[in-house]
Amino acid sequence: MNKVIQVGLLGMGTVGTGVLKLLQKNGASIEQRVGAQIVIKKVLVRDLSKSRPLPVDAIMTTVVEDILDDPDIQIVVEVMGGEHPALEYMLKAMQNGKHVVTANKDIVAKYGRELFETAEKNQVDFQFEASVAGGIPIIRPLKQCLAANRIQEVMGIVNGTTNYMLTKMTRDKSDFASVLAEAQAKGYAEADPTADVGGWDAARKIAILASIAFNTRITLDDVYVEGITAISPQDIEYAGELGYCIKLLAIAKETPRGIDVRVHPAFLPLSHPLAPVQDVFNAIFVSGDAVGDTMFYGRGAGEMPTASAVSADIIDVARDICHNVASRILCTCFDEKPVCPVRYTETPYYVRLLVEDRPGALAAIAGAFGAQQVSLHFVIQKRKVGDCAELVLITSRVPDADLRLAINTLRGMSVVREVQNVIRVEAAIE
Amino acid sequence: MNKVIQVGLLGMGTVGTGVLKLLQKNGASIEQRVGAQIVIKKVLVRDLSKSRPLPVDAIMTTVVEDILDDPDIQIVVEVMGGEHPALEYMLKAMQNGKHVVTANKDIVAKYGRELFETAEKNQVDFQFEASVAGGIPIIRPLKQCLAANRIQEVMGIVNGTTNYMLTKMTRDKSDFASVLAEAQAKGYAEADPTADVGGWDAARKIAILASIAFNTRITLDDVYVEGITAISPQDIEYAGELGYCIKLLAIAKETPRGIDVRVHPAFLPLSHPLAPVQDVFNAIFVSGDAVGDTMFYGRGAGEMPTASAVSADIIDVARDICHNVASRILCTCFDEKPVCPVRYTETPYYVRLLVEDRPGALAAIAGAFGAQQVSLHFVIQKRKVGDCAELVLITSRVPDADLRLAINTLRGMSVVREVQNVIRVEAAIE
Repeated sequence: MNKVIQVGLLGMGTVGTGVLKLLQKNGASIEQRVGAQIVIKKVLVRDLSKSRPLPVDAIMTTVVEDILDDPDIQIVVEVMGGEHPALEYMLKAMQNGKHVVTANKDIVAKYGRELFETAEKNQVDFQFEASVAGGIPIIRPLKQCLAANRIQEVMGIVNGTTNYMLTKMTRDKSDFASVLAEAQAKGYAEADPTADVGGWDAARKIAILASIAFNTRITLDDVYVEGITAISPQDIEYAGELGYCIKLLAIAKETPRGIDVRVHPAFLPLSHPLAPVQDVFNAIFVSGDAVGDTMFYGRGAGEMPTASAVSADIIDVARDICHNVASRILCTCFDEKPVCPVRYTETPYYVRLLVEDRPGALAAIAGAFGAQQVSLHFVIQKRKVGDCAELVLITSRVPDADLRLAINTLRGMSVVREVQNVIRVEAAIE
Repeated sequence: MNKVIQVGLLGMGTVGTGVLKLLQKNGASIEQRVGAQIVIKKVLVRDLSKSRPLPVDAIMTTVVEDILDDPDIQIVVEVMGGEHPALEYMLKAMQNGKHVVTANKDIVAKYGRELFETAEKNQVDFQFEASVAGGIPIIRPLKQCLAANRIQEVMGIVNGTTNYMLTKMTRDKSDFASVLAEAQAKGYAEADPTADVGGWDAARKIAILASIAFNTRITLDDVYVEGITAISPQDIEYAGELGYCIKLLAIAKETPRGIDVRVHPAFLPLSHPLAPVQDVFNAIFVSGDAVGDTMFYGRGAGEMPTASAVSADIIDVARDICHNVASRILCTCFDEKPVCPVRYTETPYYVRLLVEDRPGALAAIAGAFGAQQVSLHFVIQKRKVGDCAELVLITSRVPDADLRLAINTLRGMSVVREVQNVIRVEAAIE
């Protein structure tokens, strides 16, 4: 008879329910893979009386010690969300010699170091594949499959809500507000959409990915963040005309000034592998010095895709238990690299301006850019708006600080009625 | 001071040279990851006098026993290619207690079972990430990251040469022969291109992927194979008009009749994630019951991408050595599933015919299909060719055997001057 490995589940929301379903549905083949039966022994819930989609009455508890202090439970799976008390529960579980699996990006992005140190000290596994990009394998590929590479760049579409919204805005030429309302109605966006549309969810994920890719601890505070609220159908249309799409990108690159790590909407060439990523799908593009360009694509959220990633971690830990090994791959942040301040980051920029439609206007604008050493790669006059003309321009590659100075100058010029939008251009073909 | 793990390299062609370069270039960070220094102690070569791109004189040998019988060498890396004596060397290495890493798809596709059994018996690791799709992480993602899923389908562009050729034929509207000549001139295709253009290289790779995905041993002989030699610019043009591209696909699906595993050119909807995969790039699309659709994209060949995968395996084995564990993940073929004969496989088909341009012709042709229960989804008359008309049709989803019967009937009909091409349609939106 096979060994039994017992698991305690903290939380039974969407992801926890998915994990229970999946371990049940594919339990037989998982047992064959692992050489042991994986059993959920107890589930921590807040409310015992709430009706549940699965028959779990017999294993529910509201007392966390029933899990953390149960010597038979070898793996604790945290899928309750939030920072506290989830963090304390995980630390306690490790101190009690239990391996920990989590899907909690907030905690990994903020308390990664503490969790890794505690795991190492207590010689237990700490796994968090589901914390970034749901079902898409990306943590393990970065830590193992690309381990021989010096990673140069990680660039991802890691927030399904905003990618769905930008896809909709592109397809239907509809505006931000109406697409947001629709996404909320479909359950793709929260009532308070700030975490998604403000870029904060993506920022947590790129903090985690950057830490692994560049072997230095990057936290949420290190990430420069801009959301998509200012993107208009007009910008999307002009992007298309110029051979680009607009995506909310989470980017991390190693530069001579440190790790350049940011989340913002960007023009992306239609020929880039990330450009065809539609709707709620996620994808992460990784460049390494040996492997070249790679990409990992799939569903970044949802009950079963996330359960797939959490369960893969459980299986991995169970394999470790069967082979009597732990902490085989832990923290890989063995360097301390500085973060490159956003003012030094360099990209071309798309700028959309409303200017007075009179002779000399363009010369004045070009002069304002030139004064900051910003050269213009491309300028085109688009539609008339009242007595004004809409001007679209793409700059050459410039430091963010120089661009900001030029934009400030423009804002003070009588010929410029409005600076309508400023959007970075990524992966431009130069 | 860190531990030293010594490696013996069998072969110093393109991949072997890449591995030496990479372990040297990124040796410091690899040492930090592993907690041990990885050193290539000896390299087996055929000719000591040949000039080499790296200074390896001191470690070269022509005597394989210098590696296989050296007790200090813990990992043997087979990058010599060919079936014999590479297989025997690997088996001997395992019997001598050494872990084995290989990039050899021919051997893994043909002798996988024997190698796994020998590895298990001798409690050593056996890794082969580079045998499929070069630098793209796919073996480890399937065996670990998607381990909780029942895999439903694996569909890949796994041969860079043919993908480059089809991309060129699509972009430049050029024909097979001229693109092949160009690919040969660029070094993308061999002097004898059969393994690539005949689909045999892709067939070996899908045999390996199918074995892992469906937990049953699939060998090259199980794979139905068609190459791309019959694809004409005309087919590619019509595909484009109908919203498809033509790709050489390596496909494995689980069906009620067994594992459907085949390599052939196919119409693929332009909206499919594999459709934008251009030039020599590879990608593997995997569907699982929990994760949904995923895709893994990157360079499927070349010195450094392949070295990236081989080195990742070496790192993984080295981590096992450091943690005193072996055979942690070995063969996952614990089922014995039948292979679905190609006659039962079902897809829609594209058929291009040259028919006499006279009344009743279409009715006769439709009748020939109807007699085999093949209904036509779409029929269009294209250009005139002499006194004939070119007819393009897409059938509904039908078993291969029925389609073949209908095609045989057509070939015997006086109204049909020529059956110009018959191509499967995959991932059709139905």
